[in-house]
Amino acid sequence: MAIRYELIHEDKHSGARLGILHTPHGSFETPIFMPVGTQATVKTLSSQEVMEASDGLILGNTYHLWCQPGDEIVKAHGGIRGFMNWDGALLTDSGGYQVFSLADMRNITEEGVTFKHHTNGSKLYLTPEKAIEIQNNLGADIIMSFDECPPFHADYDYMKASVERTIRWAKRGKDVHQFPESQALFGIVQGGPFKDLRKMCIEELKKIDFPGYSIGGLSVGESKEDMYEMLQFLKDEMPKDKPRYLMGVGSPDDLIMGVLNGIDMFDCVLPSRIARHGSAMTSQGKIVIKNKIYETDMESLDPECDCFVCKNHTRSYLRHLFKGKEILGQRLVTYHNLYFLKNLMKQVRNAIRNDCLLEFKEEFFLKYYGQK
Amino acid sequence: MAIRYELIHEDKHSGARLGILHTPHGSFETPIFMPVGTQATVKTLSSQEVMEASDGLILGNTYHLWCQPGDEIVKAHGGIRGFMNWDGALLTDSGGYQVFSLADMRNITEEGVTFKHHTNGSKLYLTPEKAIEIQNNLGADIIMSFDECPPFHADYDYMKASVERTIRWAKRGKDVHQFPESQALFGIVQGGPFKDLRKMCIEELKKIDFPGYSIGGLSVGESKEDMYEMLQFLKDEMPKDKPRYLMGVGSPDDLIMGVLNGIDMFDCVLPSRIARHGSAMTSQGKIVIKNKIYETDMESLDPECDCFVCKNHTRSYLRHLFKGKEILGQRLVTYHNLYFLKNLMKQVRNAIRNDCLLEFKEEFFLKYYGQK
Repeated sequence: MAIRYELIHEDKHSGARLGILHTPHGSFETPIFMPVGTQATVKTLSSQEVMEASDGLILGNTYHLWCQPGDEIVKAHGGIRGFMNWDGALLTDSGGYQVFSLADMRNITEEGVTFKHHTNGSKLYLTPEKAIEIQNNLGADIIMSFDECPPFHADYDYMKASVERTIRWAKRGKDVHQFPESQALFGIVQGGPFKDLRKMCIEELKKIDFPGYSIGGLSVGESKEDMYEMLQFLKDEMPKDKPRYLMGVGSPDDLIMGVLNGIDMFDCVLPSRIARHGSAMTSQGKIVIKNKIYETDMESLDPECDCFVCKNHTRSYLRHLFKGKEILGQRLVTYHNLYFLKNLMKQVRNAIRNDCLLEFKEEFFLKYYGQK
Repeated sequence: MAIRYELIHEDKHSGARLGILHTPHGSFETPIFMPVGTQATVKTLSSQEVMEASDGLILGNTYHLWCQPGDEIVKAHGGIRGFMNWDGALLTDSGGYQVFSLADMRNITEEGVTFKHHTNGSKLYLTPEKAIEIQNNLGADIIMSFDECPPFHADYDYMKASVERTIRWAKRGKDVHQFPESQALFGIVQGGPFKDLRKMCIEELKKIDFPGYSIGGLSVGESKEDMYEMLQFLKDEMPKDKPRYLMGVGSPDDLIMGVLNGIDMFDCVLPSRIARHGSAMTSQGKIVIKNKIYETDMESLDPECDCFVCKNHTRSYLRHLFKGKEILGQRLVTYHNLYFLKNLMKQVRNAIRNDCLLEFKEEFFLKYYGQK
């Protein structure tokens, strides 16, 4: 088996899970947040910086790397790790989400999906088998089944047919997966807001038997209440002995609510994307560093943070870099935001260890959002 | 005195100078190339990276920092060093070049220059005294007199009047300079293509007495032959006991030709600017990394280079980053290009030490440009 999940402790009051995820390229305490390196680079950062500002497990995007430079070129480097010179562990998504979020003109059949490239308009074709073949070439430690990610509010009949097809696709993917001993293939739970479909999906995926399970089709535009309600439902339905990965979630509130509902793994572009627009996550909440009030602010970005950026630069300097449209500004805030989430997840894990995640949540929400 | 220049050795065959420039923030072997950190950042790089990829002496632009964030804010950080967290030495230009290259609608009087901001169009006013006051606030180890930098092919009468004014401006600047013990103020030699004006300028500046002399008004669009001819003339006219700084020069051929004509210091945006457009300086000449031929090239950017980028990444990966419009590509090539020039200047200094700079020049030109 490529990976092994070890459940260390459940928070007595919330049931949040503290665990260890053993992979071919390192063991990682969970819950864990994984920064996104879409094109084999976490935007603006070097691999060394990503190592410092993460726990050592990051995500690459199958769709993007398939389109550019092509998975064969990545394979020639020994996979994404060699391609980007990354000395940690990796996870790739299946490309399914990009097909449904970026591409126009998609045509879904039982066999696969035809769609247009998100920028150059060229015609592309992905099948469950092709998605696994690409991921075998990209060589990540954890890979994903090809799934359909329908809109959250698609009607029941559409969703039911889609989930059933996603299950068949998961089976087809597993059947062609070449390296189960070095790459752990996860099944993806879909079903939108329909609990019976979610439950059916889990049951069927369990029969196929995967070393881990992802939750897809959440954080796709539905309300936070809808998402949290579904997470609460899924908490008792998901297999306890396998890692649970909530895809595309990365805001502090959603991370904590996810953990409270038994999630072990998260990824999101949010911390790096908002950083490039000058928003920094700090212990006192989000700040927009470009604002005039920071022009003469000699304080560090986050006085409670001990990251490289907070140790070496003032808000005034960071504000100047954004005013001057300097790339270094984007770099430094990206680094800090990732470090902030790394540190948040460490605090979350300690809170689980001490059975006080509910208290931690209240304190954090009050400090970060000004409300409980 | 803020700085001291120590002449160590003159190449027996060319007269090129090997020296040591002692500054309040480090001693540097010369000839030296100084990367440009226009807005208190060498574009795309952290201060730590600049330290690795340079000899520890860089340039900041007075005009840009005066406009944004303002020299008072930089002063509040203890100068540019504190503002950008730079642990090396610094030089600032006078703003004169930007007034004449970037600004529209300038009006020059004996008192100073009125002109418009290069992007927002606001009205600005600089005088020799103001340029020094700003540079006193920016706190660099070496600062420049405010000069007029006229077009190389301005007519003789205009150039004569301009040079005479530049000399008067140099005197006025020296008179108001607050920190001669910690900031060395250089005079700037102007005069375009007219040798008598250049000579007159040097003589007059020597009378005012500066700890170093810059050569301005070259590399401003004239032919290389014109530039080299003037450098050869200036070689015997410039004071031997003071550092000689050729402003705005940074291509490998111009650096070597400058050194052969007795220049000790250079700065230029060239290596970092072409890097951001994907051009890399290598031991075999310049390569455009975005080109299709590098798509599957598993070689390092420059097989003879031992920099961080060349040790860790393939041309294929760098090409991918540029194709994918990833900032990391600009970062990595910028780092490499600066490192390349750092290494080139080291080789140049060793050649002077061994009295073989002329041979080195022939070999280098053949390898880099394919001709002698």
